[in-house]
Amino acid sequence: MRRDKITENQADIDNMSAFAHVITSTQNPQIKFAVKLRDSAKARREHGQFFLEGYRLCMDALENGYTPELLFCTDKFDLPGAVRISESVAQKLGDTVTPQGIFGLFKANSPAPAQQLSGKIIALENLQDPANLGAIARTAEALGIDCLVVSGGCDVYHPKALRASMGALLRLPVTQIEDSPSWLEQCELPCYAAVPVGAAITPPECDFTAGAVIVIGNEGNGLSNEVIAACDARLTIPMRGRAESLNAAAAAAILMWELCK
Amino acid sequence: MRRDKITENQADIDNMSAFAHVITSTQNPQIKFAVKLRDSAKARREHGQFFLEGYRLCMDALENGYTPELLFCTDKFDLPGAVRISESVAQKLGDTVTPQGIFGLFKANSPAPAQQLSGKIIALENLQDPANLGAIARTAEALGIDCLVVSGGCDVYHPKALRASMGALLRLPVTQIEDSPSWLEQCELPCYAAVPVGAAITPPECDFTAGAVIVIGNEGNGLSNEVIAACDARLTIPMRGRAESLNAAAAAAILMWELCK
Repeated sequence: MRRDKITENQADIDNMSAFAHVITSTQNPQIKFAVKLRDSAKARREHGQFFLEGYRLCMDALENGYTPELLFCTDKFDLPGAVRISESVAQKLGDTVTPQGIFGLFKANSPAPAQQLSGKIIALENLQDPANLGAIARTAEALGIDCLVVSGGCDVYHPKALRASMGALLRLPVTQIEDSPSWLEQCELPCYAAVPVGAAITPPECDFTAGAVIVIGNEGNGLSNEVIAACDARLTIPMRGRAESLNAAAAAAILMWELCK
Repeated sequence: MRRDKITENQADIDNMSAFAHVITSTQNPQIKFAVKLRDSAKARREHGQFFLEGYRLCMDALENGYTPELLFCTDKFDLPGAVRISESVAQKLGDTVTPQGIFGLFKANSPAPAQQLSGKIIALENLQDPANLGAIARTAEALGIDCLVVSGGCDVYHPKALRASMGALLRLPVTQIEDSPSWLEQCELPCYAAVPVGAAITPPECDFTAGAVIVIGNEGNGLSNEVIAACDARLTIPMRGRAESLNAAAAAAILMWELCK
């Protein structure tokens, strides 16, 4: 919004009062807090908030019921209620060489009760790479997965995961659980542990029509023995050649395709 | 090899004569040439050689019939015929913070004649991201794809692609073609163009048992109209949700799974 428009009426002035002030210092406490949410999973957990960069992701969050705590934008944007920041502050907040100039702090969703889940579910146990998490979420949305369950070190609000998911992590139902083995034991759907080798059934042998959970493990170590034991069956993608295993995102794509088709 | 071993017999001395000299300058012409091959697709094409980093990849190349032009290693390795380099030169050549200290320049393979291909083939047209190319090659090997055909900007000898493939690009039969449409038209196998939307058949409707080619396009722009027209059919993965498309690696994983299962 251009400054000369602010004088048009009093309501606008009240709404836009934040615009009277432009944050120009990267040492501003609100900016420092935003950087903390951007960089630290611990801060995100402690405050129950997360950081978003870019118009598209912020709109995805707003359209999917996330509550904005604070929005920042440069004077390139007309964003009601946003705190205005200088280009140099945008540079500090942004992860790209030329940031768009729009950022938001949003309240994290309270997870849906895991016991009530139904349909086709993919569970990610202790996935390490946020880019993998994002890629899997994007594929999950495209194929029609009903819910993503994450546990262990998976941080769905990691900026890299959100960006790699192209917003899918904000649009998909996502549930974060603490104790996978006990959740899997209580789950009424058939639960399949994805394993790279060994005595296991293959996707064509499974009937997923009434819904199922497929659990995919950490990139390096796979699933823990506790998680495998808590599942009803082991599921594998038969492999040839000298590849030791499929990467997590490729295995997830194939298993989600079989689950949903 | 420890230096005191070199005196053991004359044959060893002759074999190891390179060890008498340790390259300590990053301005050495051999090192500058290695860096050029590492960083420039044009240099790789012009010289018909490529650069590898790490013990595992160099062994993969040697075991799969690639001819080494020059091997470099620090004194951590006993590599017959290798040129010895200092740690600081290894640091310059390496792409990681603590390089292993072993590098090789290899002759690129002459591509197999494209007309003689048979079996289950995946063709990558103008794929942009070397990490995607590497990931797709890794999945292709694991699932049992018979040959990878690449065209357009795809550089199978890009260091990032080679690393992401975990050596699969050195182990899989790979053919580089110049003119995809004319190759596809001459190809005797049924050719399927992977498209994100539109009038197209889905994988369960196809019979891949006698072999087929599936062509996957550029991450941003998909396949060109010329390539689609040169194929026998359009193939798509049905999508739900708001995702605009699957990413290239996920789509490739699903299509290769359907092709090979």
